[in-house]
Amino acid sequence: MNNSQTIESRTTLNGVDVTALGEACKAIDQDPALATFIFRSKNQWLDGGHNRSTIEGYYGVGLDQPRKATFVMDADEPEILLGCDRGANPVEYVLHALAACVTTTMVYHAAARGMRVDRVESRLEGDLDLRGLLAMPGAKRNGYEKIVMKMKVDGDGTPEEWAEMVKFGQAHSPVFDIVSNGTEIDVQFEGA
Amino acid sequence: MNNSQTIESRTTLNGVDVTALGEACKAIDQDPALATFIFRSKNQWLDGGHNRSTIEGYYGVGLDQPRKATFVMDADEPEILLGCDRGANPVEYVLHALAACVTTTMVYHAAARGMRVDRVESRLEGDLDLRGLLAMPGAKRNGYEKIVMKMKVDGDGTPEEWAEMVKFGQAHSPVFDIVSNGTEIDVQFEGA
Repeated sequence: MNNSQTIESRTTLNGVDVTALGEACKAIDQDPALATFIFRSKNQWLDGGHNRSTIEGYYGVGLDQPRKATFVMDADEPEILLGCDRGANPVEYVLHALAACVTTTMVYHAAARGMRVDRVESRLEGDLDLRGLLAMPGAKRNGYEKIVMKMKVDGDGTPEEWAEMVKFGQAHSPVFDIVSNGTEIDVQFEGA
Repeated sequence: MNNSQTIESRTTLNGVDVTALGEACKAIDQDPALATFIFRSKNQWLDGGHNRSTIEGYYGVGLDQPRKATFVMDADEPEILLGCDRGANPVEYVLHALAACVTTTMVYHAAARGMRVDRVESRLEGDLDLRGLLAMPGAKRNGYEKIVMKMKVDGDGTPEEWAEMVKFGQAHSPVFDIVSNGTEIDVQFEGA
């Protein structure tokens, strides 16, 4: 008679499968090539300031990874910027990408530490001088001079612990790194 | 008897009101404060890797500018990254923002030069080492190591002229500047 049992204990917190997160870290520790991810998108110009990206598969964990759904996102400019406002504009998408990434990074690491998140909200602002885009003299740069992101977080930690988690999220967020430290971009013209 | 007439001649090319573009440049030249724009977004965490940004008004041309529509965009992670794939992920949104911005900048300046655009398409890739996000040792950085953007452009110019327009678009694109040169980000924790 055998009384031994295998009990699989899985922990999920903040909607994150913490057990799978730990397993992923162990697998990557044994085979670092599994950590290489390549993300892809296609964009097609439609008219004026209106264009559309489609995002499907990516490469990760050593394989091309198809997706069930295709994500479609439209960019446009407001009428003041000579568009028809059929979508957020490119610099607004940057604010979204940044907020989303710092939030997710923080929520995942909070889950790994056993800290329950109840609420995360952020408000972002970025200021720019349109003379850069217009190729007119006088702008310090073409893009945002500065981005400010104000975050509120509520959960089962002290304000000091959440302040530290926000810093930790920022310190490990891919988009925070991409934008704050700059990233090499190679634009290649391929003809018609 | 007065035979004089005022004929208003407006030019639109590539879906861009070139007359309005010229007028905007003149107005900004006379009052550079009109060139200051502030873009804004709000983000709310929903669950796990899923969060949602809403984008409404912005500041520009000396005024707060409301929008008729609110733009809503969801970010999530694919299942391999412990999400439920309810939207593109944050680093994929960066690729969209970049493609959209370089495209729009090029199309607007082509219109200003009188060059008709028939088609613009781009494919983007960015590679990253997940160990950065996971706070594991070994990654060179948390974000993309490099972004490659391959662009095809067709219209009424020579390949050499379009190659130069692609470079011009890149050189004046706000998102290209934000990402390639890096941008100061101030993350402020505001409590619960």
